[in-house]
Amino acid sequence: MFTPRPIAFVHSPYQDTSEIPRGLGARHLAEGSIELLREFEPGLADIEGFSHLFVLWVFDRATDFSLTAHPPADNRDHGVFATRSPRRPNPIGLTVVELLGRDGPVLRVRGLDMLDGTPVLDIKPYLSSIPTEKIRRGWLAEAEACKG
Amino acid sequence: MFTPRPIAFVHSPYQDTSEIPRGLGARHLAEGSIELLREFEPGLADIEGFSHLFVLWVFDRATDFSLTAHPPADNRDHGVFATRSPRRPNPIGLTVVELLGRDGPVLRVRGLDMLDGTPVLDIKPYLSSIPTEKIRRGWLAEAEACKG
Repeated sequence: MFTPRPIAFVHSPYQDTSEIPRGLGARHLAEGSIELLREFEPGLADIEGFSHLFVLWVFDRATDFSLTAHPPADNRDHGVFATRSPRRPNPIGLTVVELLGRDGPVLRVRGLDMLDGTPVLDIKPYLSSIPTEKIRRGWLAEAEACKG
Repeated sequence: MFTPRPIAFVHSPYQDTSEIPRGLGARHLAEGSIELLREFEPGLADIEGFSHLFVLWVFDRATDFSLTAHPPADNRDHGVFATRSPRRPNPIGLTVVELLGRDGPVLRVRGLDMLDGTPVLDIKPYLSSIPTEKIRRGWLAEAEACKG
């Protein structure tokens, strides 16, 4: 395996998890930035050409994991791998952000859903999408239909 | 931070990286499976309802990283975070797979692009896409245009 190290930290408007929109219909439009550690800045070359990025980050305030999760969107438990619960065996979060601009080591982005100060493990270009009509969303679609 | 641990291993048709389609127009239609370790199987509850999954995994045969990468799709170097190079500061891979079915701890999937035996760190439901017309793909689109 490997030893995770932060390559960057998030500057977000969220100081507490209670401030982050969750559950059905939650939209993540928060703007902020991702600031690379100076030693990793050369790794950003040519990133400006991409409109969207995958950000892999650490749920650094999660202290334990559970194989079942109780998402805010539903009143039933689900397996943790069928949810976005922070309490995962490997506490890695994944967010797609829109890249608004770059100032040296700082990426200005929209769509943050993580806490201020969150450590980032990796950034990758978002290259393609699954067509919407081909996506099935299991229990989440059922929960939406019940509350609709 | 945290200590990464495998939750699953990939069974793929690829024994060597030279067998994995790379570069412009590469399509990943390989079928195979992701076999959860028994202790993590309860975390799969209700995953059958999702058509596509994010798989986070380890480039366990990468031995070092480089902040610049030379992708097969282009004759220029780019920053590693603007590529999918395996030689990353945190050697984590990300693949979207189509879930074909589940047999207990085994997920049958399409779209594998990792080697047989690759350790998996996390599985998450794929919930939504960026509309294709909103995605810009920087150097990759340029490289495609030049070779088109």
